[in-house]
Amino acid sequence: MSTTPLHFNAFLMSTGHHEASWRLPESDAHATTTIAHYQNLARTAERGALDSVFFADSPALWGDIGRRPSGSLEPTVVLTALAAVTTHIGLIATASTTYNDPYNLARRFASLDHISGGRAGWNIVTTAGPEAARNFGLDDQPAHAERYQRAAEFVEVAKKLWDSWDDEAPSPDKDSGVWGDNKLVRRIEHSGRHFKVGGALNVPRSPQAYPVLVQAGSSEDGRDFAARHAEAVFTAQQTLADAQAFYADVKRRAAAAGRDPDLVKILPGIVPVIGSTEAEAKALEDELDRLIVAEYARDSLAQQLKLRPEDLPLDAELPADLPTEDEIEGAKSRFTLIVELARRERLTVRQLIGRLGGGRGHRTFSGTPEQVADAIQEWASAGAADGFNIMPAVLPSGLEAFVDHVVPILRARGLHREGYTGTTLREHYGLPRPANLFDRV
Amino acid sequence: MSTTPLHFNAFLMSTGHHEASWRLPESDAHATTTIAHYQNLARTAERGALDSVFFADSPALWGDIGRRPSGSLEPTVVLTALAAVTTHIGLIATASTTYNDPYNLARRFASLDHISGGRAGWNIVTTAGPEAARNFGLDDQPAHAERYQRAAEFVEVAKKLWDSWDDEAPSPDKDSGVWGDNKLVRRIEHSGRHFKVGGALNVPRSPQAYPVLVQAGSSEDGRDFAARHAEAVFTAQQTLADAQAFYADVKRRAAAAGRDPDLVKILPGIVPVIGSTEAEAKALEDELDRLIVAEYARDSLAQQLKLRPEDLPLDAELPADLPTEDEIEGAKSRFTLIVELARRERLTVRQLIGRLGGGRGHRTFSGTPEQVADAIQEWASAGAADGFNIMPAVLPSGLEAFVDHVVPILRARGLHREGYTGTTLREHYGLPRPANLFDRV
Repeated sequence: MSTTPLHFNAFLMSTGHHEASWRLPESDAHATTTIAHYQNLARTAERGALDSVFFADSPALWGDIGRRPSGSLEPTVVLTALAAVTTHIGLIATASTTYNDPYNLARRFASLDHISGGRAGWNIVTTAGPEAARNFGLDDQPAHAERYQRAAEFVEVAKKLWDSWDDEAPSPDKDSGVWGDNKLVRRIEHSGRHFKVGGALNVPRSPQAYPVLVQAGSSEDGRDFAARHAEAVFTAQQTLADAQAFYADVKRRAAAAGRDPDLVKILPGIVPVIGSTEAEAKALEDELDRLIVAEYARDSLAQQLKLRPEDLPLDAELPADLPTEDEIEGAKSRFTLIVELARRERLTVRQLIGRLGGGRGHRTFSGTPEQVADAIQEWASAGAADGFNIMPAVLPSGLEAFVDHVVPILRARGLHREGYTGTTLREHYGLPRPANLFDRV
Repeated sequence: MSTTPLHFNAFLMSTGHHEASWRLPESDAHATTTIAHYQNLARTAERGALDSVFFADSPALWGDIGRRPSGSLEPTVVLTALAAVTTHIGLIATASTTYNDPYNLARRFASLDHISGGRAGWNIVTTAGPEAARNFGLDDQPAHAERYQRAAEFVEVAKKLWDSWDDEAPSPDKDSGVWGDNKLVRRIEHSGRHFKVGGALNVPRSPQAYPVLVQAGSSEDGRDFAARHAEAVFTAQQTLADAQAFYADVKRRAAAAGRDPDLVKILPGIVPVIGSTEAEAKALEDELDRLIVAEYARDSLAQQLKLRPEDLPLDAELPADLPTEDEIEGAKSRFTLIVELARRERLTVRQLIGRLGGGRGHRTFSGTPEQVADAIQEWASAGAADGFNIMPAVLPSGLEAFVDHVVPILRARGLHREGYTGTTLREHYGLPRPANLFDRV
């Protein structure tokens, strides 16, 4: 069961999570490369005392730049620019274990944690798809299981690097001229299947010791990884029953791995479309769906399903003959979610595109602030969520609506903090600062 | 000959470039991990309308953490945090071509350039020393020539990635629902000896097209690389004659490579120790040198010279039998500079340590603001420099002294701008925004 208060992250992406959001008159079609846009969003999220802002990421240009705002600034450098204009909000960047070196990435997150005063989080991804692989000397992505094995060793190396400095290693004594204690800085001498890293890190241990570790894959491999390593789990769940099952499963796996399940926060995505009346919310949702260019969306859907666009007539249901999850080396759980959604509700391709247009498989919900708060409370009180990854359909207006109109209702119900009680992301999430693993040896 | 105005970068490092600076009562011994310290320095540099702030870097912890403040935040994430609190000053980060992937690094610099509105610069280094190599799966550093070959291909790939988007590729049309033109985004399909990269970059072409390319190695390989690729060259030169010879040589090589030598700015380092009187400056210099712990400095010198500490009695000159530059696979030109300095002035090891303590081989100069301005003007007017990399012995006070007391004198002499006339680093340096290389095909 969830505890109160709940946890809320603002998942930031360009003009919003609805793929047609950029076409609205209010939207800045160049928002993707405009840091002031993201700085304003971070300030808004902080005004609502949300736990964090969060950026997805992949080191590749994907899809069709005709369809929607394309390209994205690298999240760790974006987040330090947000750190500079905020004081409390957590800062979670996605970064790939498949296409980074542990030394460089561990260092960048340690730096972000210092710069932000302990507000860093790392959403650990293994990066699906051949496009990214081809940017790093490979012809195709490594297999799913292989990527997760590398991820596990990557996190192991990163933790050793973050702990390579004892908290007390810097102990400057101006009189004697001794700045620090070499005995409290350790070479890690890691030698494993994927990595050989000497260490120590060249950054002192950071305010949080290391970033909050987040995980966002819901496949079997992903759940096992989350149970062992993650402190927060982002997940896409369409129905309450699925969300409850996922919640219980990850908590069970965490306990089986010897961890306290309360220290693994489960945060499903939700795409709220908020109106002051139900009709207003529906009208905005309809307008957004009407603005989707169906052909673009079909191309993308075909790619996810490993089909050709011509296999997907817009006004027919999905073909009976589809690949199985086993044949997908990319985003396995997202594939299954889409197919199940279409089958369960007998959606035509056009209808499915509308449902996916809002949140790419995440739960969409349109309604009044009360109805959005109800939807949040329902899942949280039913053992389906410790909080939510808020994915506004339109930015900045959707985040402003959430903060200004939904947050006060959640507060009145005791579901959200009145203000920050700590200064670090770990404190917002109720997570302890990790002990140094070398101290435990 | 140099043109006026000259160019000035503030080379920022912890409590200053003198290794004992952290021991002064005024210094914050934890400055290395304190972003407010660097933000204040950037604001000070901007107040003086300097061209840029600059950070050195290596992906390894080197030396003895007893000796001086150790570790350093990763420069690209530091610089976006400085971008957020400044509006004009250029932002130059050092990054290694030996221990990065071109896709990730090109993307991070493109992101920094967008976030800062066109103020990014990249000091391209090949990273000497086995310590870094051991953090990236290698037992020792690749050979000097091999590192430079990789660097050349790295820059080639990065330029292709930065140009993979035409400036006009994003052309959002809300009415038709077409955000951009796919024909103006190109896969680069680079396949070379060191790298295979498909592209395109996932960041639109940035305000400056790409960061100002800076180079800081002065070996034969380094000079050739600078002549072909660099738009600014940082160099350590102890004497006017050496600096003149270097200046003429790099300009000649640039011309031989078919480039306009005026578009390669030569910027020697200078470590000014500024006092309101000559005696005050000397007193500060003496105090700093007195605070050096000789044994720490000797260990480090021995490492650079490939000797054991016990081979270097403090009150004797350097031993007659030293390795040659050919035997050094690390920082070749710095090795030769140190040996020549010691031989030329017949310095004891203790005296050499004092001379190196201020600037690690860079020219140190103590005096009044007028004398510092004279020293700058002398080199600039003698064809030895297009400007200087200002390396204050103590930070922040040394940068404040330069901005508040030396800059007004330089302005009165017409050697420094009154205020910024442009908004990008390329504009500060008088460099054109590069044409897209794919347009020239």
